Amino acid sequence: MKILGIDPGLGRCGFGLIDAVNRSGAKALDYGVVTTTVDAPLPARLKELYDSLNEVFDQTQPEVVAVEKLFFSKNITTGIAVAEARGIVLLVAEQRGLLVYEYSPNEIKKTLTGYGAAEKGQIQEMVRVHLGLDKKPRPDDAADALAAAITCSFLYEYGQNDEYKFSNNRRK
Amino acid sequence: MKILGIDPGLGRCGFGLIDAVNRSGAKALDYGVVTTTVDAPLPARLKELYDSLNEVFDQTQPEVVAVEKLFFSKNITTGIAVAEARGIVLLVAEQRGLLVYEYSPNEIKKTLTGYGAAEKGQIQEMVRVHLGLDKKPRPDDAADALAAAITCSFLYEYGQNDEYKFSNNRRK
Repeated sequence: MKILGIDPGLGRCGFGLIDAVNRSGAKALDYGVVTTTVDAPLPARLKELYDSLNEVFDQTQPEVVAVEKLFFSKNITTGIAVAEARGIVLLVAEQRGLLVYEYSPNEIKKTLTGYGAAEKGQIQEMVRVHLGLDKKPRPDDAADALAAAITCSFLYEYGQNDEYKFSNNRRK
Repeated sequence: MKILGIDPGLGRCGFGLIDAVNRSGAKALDYGVVTTTVDAPLPARLKELYDSLNEVFDQTQPEVVAVEKLFFSKNITTGIAVAEARGIVLLVAEQRGLLVYEYSPNEIKKTLTGYGAAEKGQIQEMVRVHLGLDKKPRPDDAADALAAAITCSFLYEYGQNDEYKFSNNRRK
């Protein structure tokens, strides 16, 4: 199953496509980062993001989408921009009729390492090992997106995505 | 000049179209609220919003768009949903190549009443009088959207929108 993970952001939006066979088998098919012009007006940046994400979806042809949920702990202004960008991510997936799963940073950490407060480095190492990569995937946004995709594949195998769907009003 | 004001929201998104001639003359051409299905998944609601806003833009054919900025004071979860919806509003305007002006609630209050901490009732009464309406426009979201549009028309006349554009990286 081809799962596209996305780590939403306005300036940098990470994506990572995995082909998940089962819990012990997945490979990274593609990953990277979509960027927008820093000094452009916000509406123009959101359209840039929309257009670039459509290219990513065209190229990667995912069957399912896994998007990181927003967790506001630090900068609220940055948080608003991330949420605005996140709206675009969800719109693009929905316009293609794809099922979207959303995971909080803690759910991702807990699913991948069994520990909800795991360090970023641990998550990245887990992503590297699980996907059989020589090095940790770079940049961080792409690694986070791959982590969201792997989380989705694990919860699929455990049948927990369905439960999650209902608790979050996911359709079907 | 036809200005479309928008008060972004996920469940209820207000819009108000005015035809502004000068500071003492403007009329309300259309106003109302776009809603999304409360118990639908978030991506589906964002697409509903996208589609409905496109209908509003088709019907109203604005020349300029005025969008209320997000101000987080109360519920941060609601705030995230509003920001996600706001991303969709800005995308729709940008896809039509329209100039978008953004105003904080305080800027709107200050521009309309000279007082940045004016009460909601005062703003609504000012909107009613300025547009020559018999009653305050309803619902509140539509009144807020009309207030954003009137703010835009005032700052246009004072030449202050241009200044604002530069300070906020607005184009052209």
